[in-house]
Amino acid sequence: MEMSHRSAAFSEIVDTAQARVRRVLGLPQDYSVLFLQGGASSQFLAVANNLLQGGVADYLDTGTWSAKAIKEAKRFGTVNVAFSGKESGYNAVPTDWDKSQDAVYTHYTSNNTVAGTQFPGLPASHAGLLVCDASSDIASRPMDYSKIDVVYAGAQKNLGPSGVTLVTLSPAAQERAAASDAPTMLKWATHIAAKKQLFNTPNTIGIYTLERVFAWIEEQGLQAVAERNTAKANALYDLFDGSEFWEAHALPGSRSQMNVTWRLGQRDLESTLIAQAEAAGFSGIKGHRSVGGLRASIYNACPMDSVTALVDFLSEFERSHG
Amino acid sequence: MEMSHRSAAFSEIVDTAQARVRRVLGLPQDYSVLFLQGGASSQFLAVANNLLQGGVADYLDTGTWSAKAIKEAKRFGTVNVAFSGKESGYNAVPTDWDKSQDAVYTHYTSNNTVAGTQFPGLPASHAGLLVCDASSDIASRPMDYSKIDVVYAGAQKNLGPSGVTLVTLSPAAQERAAASDAPTMLKWATHIAAKKQLFNTPNTIGIYTLERVFAWIEEQGLQAVAERNTAKANALYDLFDGSEFWEAHALPGSRSQMNVTWRLGQRDLESTLIAQAEAAGFSGIKGHRSVGGLRASIYNACPMDSVTALVDFLSEFERSHG
Repeated sequence: MEMSHRSAAFSEIVDTAQARVRRVLGLPQDYSVLFLQGGASSQFLAVANNLLQGGVADYLDTGTWSAKAIKEAKRFGTVNVAFSGKESGYNAVPTDWDKSQDAVYTHYTSNNTVAGTQFPGLPASHAGLLVCDASSDIASRPMDYSKIDVVYAGAQKNLGPSGVTLVTLSPAAQERAAASDAPTMLKWATHIAAKKQLFNTPNTIGIYTLERVFAWIEEQGLQAVAERNTAKANALYDLFDGSEFWEAHALPGSRSQMNVTWRLGQRDLESTLIAQAEAAGFSGIKGHRSVGGLRASIYNACPMDSVTALVDFLSEFERSHG
Repeated sequence: MEMSHRSAAFSEIVDTAQARVRRVLGLPQDYSVLFLQGGASSQFLAVANNLLQGGVADYLDTGTWSAKAIKEAKRFGTVNVAFSGKESGYNAVPTDWDKSQDAVYTHYTSNNTVAGTQFPGLPASHAGLLVCDASSDIASRPMDYSKIDVVYAGAQKNLGPSGVTLVTLSPAAQERAAASDAPTMLKWATHIAAKKQLFNTPNTIGIYTLERVFAWIEEQGLQAVAERNTAKANALYDLFDGSEFWEAHALPGSRSQMNVTWRLGQRDLESTLIAQAEAAGFSGIKGHRSVGGLRASIYNACPMDSVTALVDFLSEFERSHG
């Protein structure tokens, strides 16, 4: 924590972290890898401020976080909300949508923590550059991240401690952003030019920890990480699909492997279940108020044993109350 | 590091940290205490975006960091550079300057890391609100911080690990900022309204560590901290004033107790001294290229013993080469 961000030792940490990000996400050398501050919430602003420049962008509204990104983008150009899941309680992500011919970029949220939905992979098609808020599912599965022009992700779900934001930029995104009149700290070009996070003091211990987490991911490989994530999620979805006592919130094809959301057929039993689950040590199990019910957040770091324990607990609850 | 920023445990950490900041800096309850991200560099932008609103601000140019703050402010209104130390190599801070009658605020950098100058206390007078970049000398001495409407400081010098920015706001600053059209994350009102850093995920481990550092300061009291800082700085300035072998860069009355900058009368000996000092374990001793010579950064955490060791080393060098 006391290490200067200008020291040779820290410079090596940044080099190693950038190289690991490139290897794990499959990004060529000409992609920029930045470790910024301010969370995805700051990138809602930075994305539009760097790229939009008075143009049109397609935004897919798949829930809370997309809506926040849309709000910030409107300051810098025209936002076409090309899809909205609002009417259906955000229980699905789109496979196609109303594309703008002249879109500078298309923005999507790959995983939606509140609704518990997730894009099963890359969009089949899109207009302009592709921009992804991957905060809650980055590095959870093999995917060709080089197909995404801008990936941004707060570190605190899958990459390390809070306070670091990973941003990766394709050459096309870098080129577009170079013409932006964004303020110095919001302008990606500032940090690209400074290299190694030297424009101002970055979150050094956060970057170090992120590097260690990427090392942990790299040792296993994304395939093994994904298999564990799928096994964890399926253990829960199988339970919910196997009995009318339960109702999974997200539709098949849109179900998240990071945040599983569900309700009880008997709504009045939900508060009892939440209280008993919390008492049994399953923390943060209450669903977001906009969805209700329950939610299990099972990010990369959550072991299979924890999910098995939850499935056992829920099965026992069903036997007692079903 | 795994603690949710919405947990009761973390909420208590934020409460404790805010209370300690208020006690140590002497800020009443109606002052806001925020723990943001992005460093002072982001507040160069935020200050002007929240307060200026097309008006006039007086900026005191006392070096590198002031110049960066001035650059960002120009986007949002008229900047009156009321003082500039540029011509004299930034070797002094002003006691008075050319004030704008209608200034919304006056901005100063209380300590200048590159030039090694520091305001000896609060400005005697100023126009509008008073705004201070206190990144490199906050909590280094007793001062009535409640007289400053906006104090901002990156944590990494005196307050903890990098990645947290402390911002304190007087009621008058809060009122002015409430009318700003700044983007959501830059708008101070967003974080004031959300309380306890709940608008988005903050740097949790950074805030925890900052709380521990403020506890360490509070145990000693700012008076004791200041006495140690003065003793450390005087040990160096006394050496430099006592012999023509040395030249202190900053003028008396403007000398920093955090960053001591000096040159050798024989300029061609400087590189020898720097190399020998680095070899002897005095790291970061080379002065910034804009000033040249040498610099000793002796923030709160630097013990007297380290300074004594440096003074002994320098005295020995003088005996060998003087």
